[in-house]
Amino acid sequence: MALYEAMFTQYSTCTAQVLVTNLDFHDDEKRQNLNSTLQELLRMNIVPIINTNDAVVPPPEPNSDLQGVISIKDNDSLAARLAVEMKADLLIALSDVEGLYNSPPGTDDAKLIDIFYSGDQQSITYGTKSRVGIGGMEAKVMAALWALRGGTSVVIANGTNPKITGHVITDIVEGKKVGTFFSEIKPAGPSVEEQTEMARNSGRILASLHPDQRSEIICHLAELLIERKDEVLVANKMDIEMAVSAGRLPSAMLKRLSLSLEKLNTLAVGLRQIATAARDNIGRVVRRTRVAQSLELEQVTVPIGVLLVIFEARPDCLPQVSALAIASGNALLLKGGKEAANTNYVLHQLTQEALSLHGVREAVQMVSTHEEVEDICRLDKMIDLIIPRGSSQLVQEIQRVAKGIPVLGHSEGICHVYVDADASVSKVIKIVRDSKCDYPAACNAMETLLIHRDILRTPMFDQIIEMLHNEQVKIHSGPRFASYLTFSPSEARSLRTEYGDLECCLEVVDSVQEAVEHIHKYGSSHTDVIITENKETAEQFLQQLDSACVFWNTSSRFADGYRFGLGAEVGISTARIHARGPVGLEGLLTTKWVLRGEGHTVADFSENGSMKYLHENLPVA
Amino acid sequence: MALYEAMFTQYSTCTAQVLVTNLDFHDDEKRQNLNSTLQELLRMNIVPIINTNDAVVPPPEPNSDLQGVISIKDNDSLAARLAVEMKADLLIALSDVEGLYNSPPGTDDAKLIDIFYSGDQQSITYGTKSRVGIGGMEAKVMAALWALRGGTSVVIANGTNPKITGHVITDIVEGKKVGTFFSEIKPAGPSVEEQTEMARNSGRILASLHPDQRSEIICHLAELLIERKDEVLVANKMDIEMAVSAGRLPSAMLKRLSLSLEKLNTLAVGLRQIATAARDNIGRVVRRTRVAQSLELEQVTVPIGVLLVIFEARPDCLPQVSALAIASGNALLLKGGKEAANTNYVLHQLTQEALSLHGVREAVQMVSTHEEVEDICRLDKMIDLIIPRGSSQLVQEIQRVAKGIPVLGHSEGICHVYVDADASVSKVIKIVRDSKCDYPAACNAMETLLIHRDILRTPMFDQIIEMLHNEQVKIHSGPRFASYLTFSPSEARSLRTEYGDLECCLEVVDSVQEAVEHIHKYGSSHTDVIITENKETAEQFLQQLDSACVFWNTSSRFADGYRFGLGAEVGISTARIHARGPVGLEGLLTTKWVLRGEGHTVADFSENGSMKYLHENLPVA
Repeated sequence: MALYEAMFTQYSTCTAQVLVTNLDFHDDEKRQNLNSTLQELLRMNIVPIINTNDAVVPPPEPNSDLQGVISIKDNDSLAARLAVEMKADLLIALSDVEGLYNSPPGTDDAKLIDIFYSGDQQSITYGTKSRVGIGGMEAKVMAALWALRGGTSVVIANGTNPKITGHVITDIVEGKKVGTFFSEIKPAGPSVEEQTEMARNSGRILASLHPDQRSEIICHLAELLIERKDEVLVANKMDIEMAVSAGRLPSAMLKRLSLSLEKLNTLAVGLRQIATAARDNIGRVVRRTRVAQSLELEQVTVPIGVLLVIFEARPDCLPQVSALAIASGNALLLKGGKEAANTNYVLHQLTQEALSLHGVREAVQMVSTHEEVEDICRLDKMIDLIIPRGSSQLVQEIQRVAKGIPVLGHSEGICHVYVDADASVSKVIKIVRDSKCDYPAACNAMETLLIHRDILRTPMFDQIIEMLHNEQVKIHSGPRFASYLTFSPSEARSLRTEYGDLECCLEVVDSVQEAVEHIHKYGSSHTDVIITENKETAEQFLQQLDSACVFWNTSSRFADGYRFGLGAEVGISTARIHARGPVGLEGLLTTKWVLRGEGHTVADFSENGSMKYLHENLPVA
Repeated sequence: MALYEAMFTQYSTCTAQVLVTNLDFHDDEKRQNLNSTLQELLRMNIVPIINTNDAVVPPPEPNSDLQGVISIKDNDSLAARLAVEMKADLLIALSDVEGLYNSPPGTDDAKLIDIFYSGDQQSITYGTKSRVGIGGMEAKVMAALWALRGGTSVVIANGTNPKITGHVITDIVEGKKVGTFFSEIKPAGPSVEEQTEMARNSGRILASLHPDQRSEIICHLAELLIERKDEVLVANKMDIEMAVSAGRLPSAMLKRLSLSLEKLNTLAVGLRQIATAARDNIGRVVRRTRVAQSLELEQVTVPIGVLLVIFEARPDCLPQVSALAIASGNALLLKGGKEAANTNYVLHQLTQEALSLHGVREAVQMVSTHEEVEDICRLDKMIDLIIPRGSSQLVQEIQRVAKGIPVLGHSEGICHVYVDADASVSKVIKIVRDSKCDYPAACNAMETLLIHRDILRTPMFDQIIEMLHNEQVKIHSGPRFASYLTFSPSEARSLRTEYGDLECCLEVVDSVQEAVEHIHKYGSSHTDVIITENKETAEQFLQQLDSACVFWNTSSRFADGYRFGLGAEVGISTARIHARGPVGLEGLLTTKWVLRGEGHTVADFSENGSMKYLHENLPVA
């Protein structure tokens, strides 16, 4: 009590100890008095701390059952009884385990149950050694179910987990997935975990289909988009009306949210391109080796497994991403934005209808918008790759919560254009304008313009500045550039800024070497450009610079899967492993090794063995 | 004080409030009394909680300098004064920032300083808006340096970071890198961060060398290993003697730790093989596309960047891993085990000597054995890939602390051999024996033997059991297998066990389909084998099973880079992206995209533009 008091005092909250006995609940008058006392304490903002009056109460009888009115025999039943008595909205029971498991924790298939329904009780196996009785899990569950029937929701969670101690109660109240939530009503749909399981199983069948069948599914989806356009557009209209009436979306977002017949047509054309690309993907032999006589090794492409794609307002993302997953034989979990919920629902229905063509309806699952990404990432053993499609804030947020699941995406696009001393003025003007102004919000737009010192105060320099002024690009000066000017523009807060708008930083360097060093220091290894007529300088830049895309005399805006001719774009990756830069369908594939022998053992290759390694490369076609 | 009291009471520890004033320190007698009081309190296990007696002390004068005897003007100087007075070993100053930064936190180059030396003061820029004065960082640093000169070590750390609240003090006392540590003596070597920086810079030069030069470095290292064998073996003998006298290494570990002339010769041969493989690695064009007229795209292989390799007792790992990194043009941080410190030191010296041949001495750095892996992983923006070489416990531990840096390695090797109804008995005996007994501790050894139901109670079954008995393999029965037997062997605790010894689980399945399902459920997607004479059944297994390596009629032990003919083995990966299964040098490479144009902009390709996309694939040779 002293500790409770001292802790609550930190928040200027008073506490009051209330001791009760079993008998207090049997007597109507006493019960009413207790109720009034507690209500009055709460009204005065005093937090009651309630316990059994151990000094006068006889020891509990653990074997008397909880039936009818619950009998108080431990803190769990006391809590349940009180919660119902007080008509509490929520009872939180803190334990030293994470919550309720379907079998004793530690056994092969034990899984934490997120939501437990009153009808589910037979699905639980309690461990024989579980501390049944006072404070044990079985007693907790029975107390929880009793409270639930009395109209109080219940959460059983771990109060001792050092990672969330101090947050557990606020996390629960904020609706995060902590512990086990007891609910009367079973929701209509499956849980995310079940969805992931269904997607993986259906995805395995998808991967084993003939490539033509995967193509057919994608083409069928393209047809459905056109055939059922009215359904799609009606749903989209609902989303837009809701967004407009709520008045919470900026107009750029509204534009992304809205679909049109034209957009659907373009989408269908794109899907048919992906369908074509789907024809020689999975099962492609990339390496063949004769390891030894009659022992042949093949490395073949296979899908990665289960993808989780998270996208924001743009609903046209859904069929695109689905087609990419289908083409590469991957199972897919989709999580779209709330603002496009109606459109996404219809588009997902169409996708599943297309998948039904070859019996793999469940390979693409849509995760409820209520699910937190952080909670989905707890399924780290079941999800193989996360692809966020949206702003770099989204990507960064997801990288933060991904808990070891790889994330394919670019966290930042701080792209540079370096104008060398030997640059041609016409190319400079063209390329700088295109890199900055064609689509300033894109990740491959220029953010920093590096200028060779020799260009300062030349007509070329004046032309660059004039062009940027005409295009209404706001210039922020780097410290070096500022030092050359009497009246400089506002200094850049940081040389590592992604403006994403008609703004850029301008800085001066002494040489291509210094440009490379500047980019290594402040860039994000996305896309960087050199403009020069000197081939040697250009090759030095292209060779030394450590970015995913290095360009010579072209706009940074070419860093894009379609422009690169990759067939379809999965995204742009600034990660350094697996896939880098614009990622096509190949980024959604991995390989497996198939070895076929006739009883070979490694002992056969030992000194006394009869076999010799050949390691002969065989043609793969 | 009430809160301190209540909290300490939880640990049955008493506290005592001690109030002091500035003047108490000026008077020798008072000072001695204070000292005795505090010593006496500590002797009685009472924790003194000390503060200035605000009720009687005049407000502090922030501008009077700390010189000579420190004047008490805030809690920091009070703490420093008291710590020195009491001859404390360590003063911990908890703040609301992580520690001391070299420039104001939030600016471009601000870095947390791990260790601050008294001579380093000029390298710090305090922010103009920093709360100089009472409780500000500058006052803290001056107080810390004063305490340091008085013989007390100091740590300034964040006491409000929710992730480590409640751990911060124990973490500091355990020597973890928390906050900024103040030290009198500057260590001889650079910090890990400086080492990483040096490695990256030197690695960039390494990557730009001619492939023959990288080969030469590796060959030179092979020569040095033989030329300077005595030096290596003497150092190794020291390590072994220390391990033996400490008596803490099991004999298997001692065997791994010890080098011999023969081992060095084998090592040198291996290095020369890697040198050969190094010839066509970096800069290999894997894709060429004519994007449009005069606009050519190349995808070329490049090193990943900075690798961190963590290895246990085996010192022969060091030259091997260094050669792999050099061959692939990657910078390398090495972290070896304490028990091989002397050997590793010499081997690293030889590696740097070899690297000096082409001026890239610093590309391979050895991290002090004192550094915690968890602390190194804080450099997540500077390290691109972690490769743990050692037990699966090591790999799992590193995956846990990797904080978003990708880890290449297999966490578990739960490999299955499935004996089909149509298996040939001679192949079964050979393959099962080799898979389990050739090297039971290897990750590619069989852990579970799956048997088709039809084989039970056949002569083949008896032969398998007899062979396993003869080889002294302990059998654990799966639940299904146990149900067929009157007297079954001990039941397997879990079907997901990696025994890593002469033990295995035996389970019965009804069909190849059930075998696949069992492996998907309980396996680790490492290596799984089918033994059958039925080609159709085999292909079903090879196609449907989702593991990195799927084998037909061969031992699971072939899952190995050398046996696969990959030239050199970097490791075996159970990750699903980037590299999967045995990984050769290619696993240490990524690609970049090089685009060469003549002033092309994406606007040229718009509806009004003059350019058209061609996307013509060009030959890569």
